[in-house]
Amino acid sequence: MKTDIEIAQANEMLPIKEVAATLSLTEDDLKLYGKYKAKVDIKKINSLSEEADGKLILVTAINPTPAGEGKSTVTVGLGDALTRIGKKAMIAMREPSLGPTMGVKGGAAGGGYAQVQPMQDINLHFTGDMHAITATNNTLSALIDNHIQQGNALNIDQRRITWKRVLDINDRALRNIVIGLGGPIQGVPRQDGFDITVASEIMAILCLSTSLTDLKNRIGNIVIGYTFDRVPVTVRDLKVEGALTLLMKDALEPNLVQTLYHTPAFVHGGPFANIAHGCNSVLATKTALKLADYVITEAGFGADLGAEKFMDIKVPQLGKSPDAVVIVATVRSLKMHGGVSVKDLNSGENVEAVKAGFTNLQKHIENMQQYGVPVVVALNEFTNDTAAEIEAVVSLCAAQEVECIQTAVWAKGAEGGEALANAVVKAIDENTKAFVPLYVAEDSSIEEKIETIVTKIYGGKSVIYSKEAKNQLRQYKKNGWDRLPVCMAKTQYSLSDDQKAIGRPENFDITIRSFVPKIGAGFVVALTGDILTMPGLPKEPAALRMDVTEDGVVTGLF
Amino acid sequence: MKTDIEIAQANEMLPIKEVAATLSLTEDDLKLYGKYKAKVDIKKINSLSEEADGKLILVTAINPTPAGEGKSTVTVGLGDALTRIGKKAMIAMREPSLGPTMGVKGGAAGGGYAQVQPMQDINLHFTGDMHAITATNNTLSALIDNHIQQGNALNIDQRRITWKRVLDINDRALRNIVIGLGGPIQGVPRQDGFDITVASEIMAILCLSTSLTDLKNRIGNIVIGYTFDRVPVTVRDLKVEGALTLLMKDALEPNLVQTLYHTPAFVHGGPFANIAHGCNSVLATKTALKLADYVITEAGFGADLGAEKFMDIKVPQLGKSPDAVVIVATVRSLKMHGGVSVKDLNSGENVEAVKAGFTNLQKHIENMQQYGVPVVVALNEFTNDTAAEIEAVVSLCAAQEVECIQTAVWAKGAEGGEALANAVVKAIDENTKAFVPLYVAEDSSIEEKIETIVTKIYGGKSVIYSKEAKNQLRQYKKNGWDRLPVCMAKTQYSLSDDQKAIGRPENFDITIRSFVPKIGAGFVVALTGDILTMPGLPKEPAALRMDVTEDGVVTGLF
Repeated sequence: MKTDIEIAQANEMLPIKEVAATLSLTEDDLKLYGKYKAKVDIKKINSLSEEADGKLILVTAINPTPAGEGKSTVTVGLGDALTRIGKKAMIAMREPSLGPTMGVKGGAAGGGYAQVQPMQDINLHFTGDMHAITATNNTLSALIDNHIQQGNALNIDQRRITWKRVLDINDRALRNIVIGLGGPIQGVPRQDGFDITVASEIMAILCLSTSLTDLKNRIGNIVIGYTFDRVPVTVRDLKVEGALTLLMKDALEPNLVQTLYHTPAFVHGGPFANIAHGCNSVLATKTALKLADYVITEAGFGADLGAEKFMDIKVPQLGKSPDAVVIVATVRSLKMHGGVSVKDLNSGENVEAVKAGFTNLQKHIENMQQYGVPVVVALNEFTNDTAAEIEAVVSLCAAQEVECIQTAVWAKGAEGGEALANAVVKAIDENTKAFVPLYVAEDSSIEEKIETIVTKIYGGKSVIYSKEAKNQLRQYKKNGWDRLPVCMAKTQYSLSDDQKAIGRPENFDITIRSFVPKIGAGFVVALTGDILTMPGLPKEPAALRMDVTEDGVVTGLF
Repeated sequence: MKTDIEIAQANEMLPIKEVAATLSLTEDDLKLYGKYKAKVDIKKINSLSEEADGKLILVTAINPTPAGEGKSTVTVGLGDALTRIGKKAMIAMREPSLGPTMGVKGGAAGGGYAQVQPMQDINLHFTGDMHAITATNNTLSALIDNHIQQGNALNIDQRRITWKRVLDINDRALRNIVIGLGGPIQGVPRQDGFDITVASEIMAILCLSTSLTDLKNRIGNIVIGYTFDRVPVTVRDLKVEGALTLLMKDALEPNLVQTLYHTPAFVHGGPFANIAHGCNSVLATKTALKLADYVITEAGFGADLGAEKFMDIKVPQLGKSPDAVVIVATVRSLKMHGGVSVKDLNSGENVEAVKAGFTNLQKHIENMQQYGVPVVVALNEFTNDTAAEIEAVVSLCAAQEVECIQTAVWAKGAEGGEALANAVVKAIDENTKAFVPLYVAEDSSIEEKIETIVTKIYGGKSVIYSKEAKNQLRQYKKNGWDRLPVCMAKTQYSLSDDQKAIGRPENFDITIRSFVPKIGAGFVVALTGDILTMPGLPKEPAALRMDVTEDGVVTGLF
């Protein structure tokens, strides 16, 4: 089997304007970035608002394990498979962050014969969205510190600035820093820290905005900290929402690319689902729904993180709920949830472990069924899977009244996803239920919303708040932020906040360490356990393997 | 008179592929970034190596004053004027940095009727070169700190890391910081600081590299600091030159845009001339010389900074010296060098002040004549200039055997630069002298080179070294860096290192505070006086005036 980048380099792409033409987009509707990438003009997007929506398919997964599940791969493969069975399909997924690419992952654009193209551009600077977010976020930081240095007319308390700087890099040394050292002309000293760019509120705003005006309004609403009298200070108070919106205006436009099979794909917006809301942009998904009959989108990590936030944070902004949910699992990862270690993964058939690990998938199926949407399980094929192991998953799914379909999109591309495509279309056609939101943000307090998520989605017992979190809750109620949705920041590896509690843990508590208000994005982040908003690099970063030759051939992205 | 952005928005651009066609570049030679920007493919650039070179015109200026000189404006206008008189001309200038755009400048792409287009893109994210440099620079920083955190196999002394982080933002609070706080899993604490991106060695390398292989080799040569045994540590030791080159491969390709008159222009690379080497990329200038008969390029700030570095640092890499130098001055700025304050600039005719301030221009004329290149003075017209003031400059120039030509490209565009274009062509045609380098880097020590620059270019008396600088000189000799060229970091406002010493100061000393080795770029930076490598924002940043409407119309860039 070839590596991902070898497959990608051997594939002939179509000029993106030809791909766009299949969606009735003209060259005038596009801003080309080379031959194979384009942004869709915001004016064209605005002109589509009266068109009917296609069907929306959300791809999610069980809690990830080191064995790998292949959620992005299934997302891409399902798009190709729907095209293959004659449907007008389009993909709307997230764009990768450079930090993990240089760290562990080495790239993220699907895999095998289910990839979006040009994968090496998508994995590097792409169309510059991440860089625009970094620049916008940090320009705001510089303007805040400059405001304080130049007399602090707004009376900002430098000990209570919640706006952090960001870089699209895994850089643990920047988590906790002291800035403004060196004497009076070098700024006002204070504690600060960098998050990874995808955790920036600017990223969340990009992903939730429905227009340039909405973007500017949300940027104006951002709370950057508090005055010495504990009054929230907004970007609007600083009078820089215009300049920051200017920096973001190109980034707001969705990026159009293609799969290996030339299925059109939006790759736009990329918040992580463990520390942010984990969904691609509302504008890309909305536009895809206008342009295609079936739109396949994904949400990050397991269904406890990305899918929950899709349903409870993104759906209200999108104005549309999924017509079907696909949950991705593999025999290997179910085995790991059943207690098998990485090194024992290749020790032959182990039906009992698969059955034991199924509890994790079962919980995610139940969770998605709570929302009233039809569920299909995609069992992503690995060569070592045995017939008995597969049969165990299929029959356990059947007991949950869910079809479990084997997919082989990684090895066989569109053909390998045909059965899944047919099952998803059938599930949509036969569905009679209506979408049931987990909570209505305006109707409950932050504590009530968190309790709902913890008990109904995670399967936990109760919620413990730190002293800091309790103080913040009182303050937020006073500020009128109590009726916002909650964005949980939690480990992706477990349904609980303990990453070692695999399978389906029970009787656990969730500890809320503190909150971060993201008033521009329109939600409050709850930090659980010891979740970090700036990752670190591993001992052997993926960067060590990367190279490029004189004529521009890239190696080491995969 | 309209503002720059109003003129720009009223102007109809040609699709960049049509502009490229006038240079015999096909669509296959281009990577489009929207309709009006393109990068030229490195393969096309490599294929041009055997073509004959056109004539090279370097535009420089007197020491800048608050009155403004208009060097970029004259650069652009001269390109348009040469086209107007029937020459095949092309411009090769630097790309602006976002930091000053949000700070004082509010944009930089020429002005009035001498602008490069699309000015609002060029002033914002453009084709992402600055962001690529920021990402590359900071990925290296993260890899260094991670190396130390993960066991420090290379024995790097965290107190002696010279590689700093960068952002393309004016942010004084990041000049002096402490990183790695928070305990053992958050990194190793150490002092650090951010420079502005244009000061990054990666920027210098981008601007001096002649191929992707050269770029990779230079990146490998970067010295990031020292071991506990004082041995220099390179990027090659860290084994990440491949990954960093990968991040820079698109940025290396020159950006093609156009003027208001559709003259083709490369806008590529943007080091400041006060803290870096101040010239656009060798690759853009080289390529322009292959594509056009006359190439107009500029170097930053006064001729003591940008032009000196052009001659002594860029020319050896470019393999070609200028065929003519244009020095830009204005009556207003000469008056300021003659002692007039900003508020008295509009108090009527003052021939004596003009004559007194001419000493600054005179020194720059003498300096450029030292290099054996023909010099033309461009007197950039302002409405309040009187005939007697202009005549004073013309006759003082004549005494230096230099033509002084009035230009009105800001108000009249190409037509306003015709006389200058004719004078420059004539100066080139009649020139019989050969280029004389100021120094040959390999033949002298760092101290000898600095003495040459200080006495022959600045007109100073002698050089004082701090204790730190003296220690560094000893170390650099041991490391074999003594034969590299020197890149002076000095205030732009004076020929001396005291920004208040305007006009033509004499009998002054230059103090070298410390050195920064830029072994990948291939030079040693000498920091004089209190020059800062990270600017700050002013009390009322330009950002406060910027905005964008729902349909994407931009205001406040000028």
